[in-house]
Amino acid sequence: MTYCVAIRVNDGLVFASDTRTSAGVDDVSTYRKMHIFSVPGERLIVLLAAGNLATTQAVINRVQRHMDEANSTLSLNNAKYLFEAADYVGKLSYSVQAEYEDALKSTGINGEASFILGGQIRGQKHEIYRVYPQGNYISAPPTTPYLQIGETKYGKPILDRMITPETAVNQAARCAVVSLDSTMRSNLSVGPPLELAVCRKDSLEISHYMELEPSSEFYEELHKRWNQGLKQAFGDLPPFDWE
Amino acid sequence: MTYCVAIRVNDGLVFASDTRTSAGVDDVSTYRKMHIFSVPGERLIVLLAAGNLATTQAVINRVQRHMDEANSTLSLNNAKYLFEAADYVGKLSYSVQAEYEDALKSTGINGEASFILGGQIRGQKHEIYRVYPQGNYISAPPTTPYLQIGETKYGKPILDRMITPETAVNQAARCAVVSLDSTMRSNLSVGPPLELAVCRKDSLEISHYMELEPSSEFYEELHKRWNQGLKQAFGDLPPFDWE
Repeated sequence: MTYCVAIRVNDGLVFASDTRTSAGVDDVSTYRKMHIFSVPGERLIVLLAAGNLATTQAVINRVQRHMDEANSTLSLNNAKYLFEAADYVGKLSYSVQAEYEDALKSTGINGEASFILGGQIRGQKHEIYRVYPQGNYISAPPTTPYLQIGETKYGKPILDRMITPETAVNQAARCAVVSLDSTMRSNLSVGPPLELAVCRKDSLEISHYMELEPSSEFYEELHKRWNQGLKQAFGDLPPFDWE
Repeated sequence: MTYCVAIRVNDGLVFASDTRTSAGVDDVSTYRKMHIFSVPGERLIVLLAAGNLATTQAVINRVQRHMDEANSTLSLNNAKYLFEAADYVGKLSYSVQAEYEDALKSTGINGEASFILGGQIRGQKHEIYRVYPQGNYISAPPTTPYLQIGETKYGKPILDRMITPETAVNQAARCAVVSLDSTMRSNLSVGPPLELAVCRKDSLEISHYMELEPSSEFYEELHKRWNQGLKQAFGDLPPFDWE
């Protein structure tokens, strides 16, 4: 399993992902699920990947090759709009899945993959898109300014309660870490280290990047203060009639 | 869908459930999922039900009939241990499912049901059990002092962070309401009013019972203070290096 989340607030974008890959509880590994593509000063595109690892790696390899080849008709380098980039990744993903579909089906393995694609192209808005296994895609509206893929449920309530378009991008980044922390506590197949990337609006580059281990000073402090804060919040809840 | 949770702390039990039943988004109704059976001063047994409504109603009807019939060899009135009561409900549930299995299968409908059974028999411990659709069951250990059925994921992180065997029963009850509130925000098929029952250890009766509408004064206050408390907790999280 996997958990990835992207948040779009007025002053920027946040991307966060775990790194656990498992093909059963006896086959657990660490793979990065965050892939950053940029042309400094021109465009920044971040891909978060969930699902079948062979599919997601095949997609990322092709994305990279198309960027390296000067004569590519369409790549993350030359897509004119972010929605075109989402469309391109969706079609790549669907074609990779189709290539192995018969072989996978015969052994009962699911080859599907989901992506979050986000970033900004110079002169355009910063956006995030969710790309479905079928290749179609949606963007996140201001009313629901985040997207998740993978094991999404445990980490959703805190996003619903805290994130609005007006949330400061650093606060949104802390919220993403708490959302991942909640998910890791409840689902063993989501695990550390975490990757966190913050992109300020119009910077067209990764403004801040962190790899977080639970033993890191920041993560330990965040985890401790969050638990203290929740206890405090509980202590402030109203008493029942009978108390 | 449904969300029910039961919590077992040292000084008592908490039961909470939503009341939404849906057979599609265009067929939504309100049904109670909490069923209380007691012999005052002798025993208290609470059943929370999730799954196919015809199955859960059939089980509850049979449970009630067995209690009403003086000559029942086994009922919630005369089970000697709570695990026997869980075993009895599991067997009833499985037999009801088996009765309709062929008819349901032919129309693609799932007849499964899950239950949480909890309470106390005089002279014994207060306990909670989860009864699976197959009729088998588990009890909640002190290391994980709660059980959930239905749409369990959204409301789990707050239970994991807040509930220990030492948590006061009223605090556990507030936590159950927050857990349900988080779930209702994220899944439309879980809905109000909520039912909440608190049973103090050795009281052998429902100590406190509430039906909570989101518009009720207590619920509104709890919801408001919880959101404020979370914001406060967020404000107390550590800054990133770059801030």
